[in-house]
Amino acid sequence: MELADLATRLLARMRARGEMIATAESCTGGLIAATLTEVPGSSDVVDRGFVTYSNAAKIDMLGIRPATLKAFGAVSEEIAAEMAGGALGRSRAAVAIAVTGIAGPGGSEFKPEGRVCFGLADAGGVRTETVDFGPLGRRAVREATVDHALRMVLVAVD
Amino acid sequence: MELADLATRLLARMRARGEMIATAESCTGGLIAATLTEVPGSSDVVDRGFVTYSNAAKIDMLGIRPATLKAFGAVSEEIAAEMAGGALGRSRAAVAIAVTGIAGPGGSEFKPEGRVCFGLADAGGVRTETVDFGPLGRRAVREATVDHALRMVLVAVD
Repeated sequence: MELADLATRLLARMRARGEMIATAESCTGGLIAATLTEVPGSSDVVDRGFVTYSNAAKIDMLGIRPATLKAFGAVSEEIAAEMAGGALGRSRAAVAIAVTGIAGPGGSEFKPEGRVCFGLADAGGVRTETVDFGPLGRRAVREATVDHALRMVLVAVD
Repeated sequence: MELADLATRLLARMRARGEMIATAESCTGGLIAATLTEVPGSSDVVDRGFVTYSNAAKIDMLGIRPATLKAFGAVSEEIAAEMAGGALGRSRAAVAIAVTGIAGPGGSEFKPEGRVCFGLADAGGVRTETVDFGPLGRRAVREATVDHALRMVLVAVD
């Protein structure tokens, strides 16, 4: 399914539930929110997005704990979980999706290029996943990340 | 110039100045931040982005005054100015660019489809512009908005 179709289906599902979504993005830098808001009429479902590209932004905007950053690094399920929980608590959304990863080129933090950690927070709690997309190139990793993030939300609200 | 080239040039210019940028986006919903962060190595220049799609998000995340929203509507130079100032004050950036507009389809707030208000805040203060892109369609209005926003920043930092 195309990203636009996935976004349209997700928004329709959330609209039917009367719920809103929030995003917390590091490696995608706003691309998840941009994909959702490309759909006409998305304003009744998309509440807000946090583009926390720097570590300072993660701390200020989402309440990420510096100790977690230090212990696990920015690209970790622990940080993805804190980002998702932070976004849920700082929005009117019923579901928050968070991503943090290494789009490349090149790895960092001793972690490989293409690794992305996902966090999803809703009333049921927070769950996390890690996917190694591999060194597909920056654009492809980011698009694969958006796709996976939207599918995670779709599973949660379906 | 392509958006990617514009973003690359802007990031290089800001990197040379040792300055960071923040974004505050309504109608583009993260597309300006996503365009900037598509460029490899953008993490030393892009601090954070606020995707304030709902009015509640504008108030919570950027300190927009409800009285300004009520008096002028979300799509106004007054709100664009408050968004840019709010983003500058809530980040480590030296420049903040804000956009709020009507991507369509259809107008709202008795304002025409394709109208976008821009705000740019830096140490020199806040300036605003309004552009009527016309009913080009949602995607084209959003892309034209990203283009104009990046050019406004480029003028400010060149």
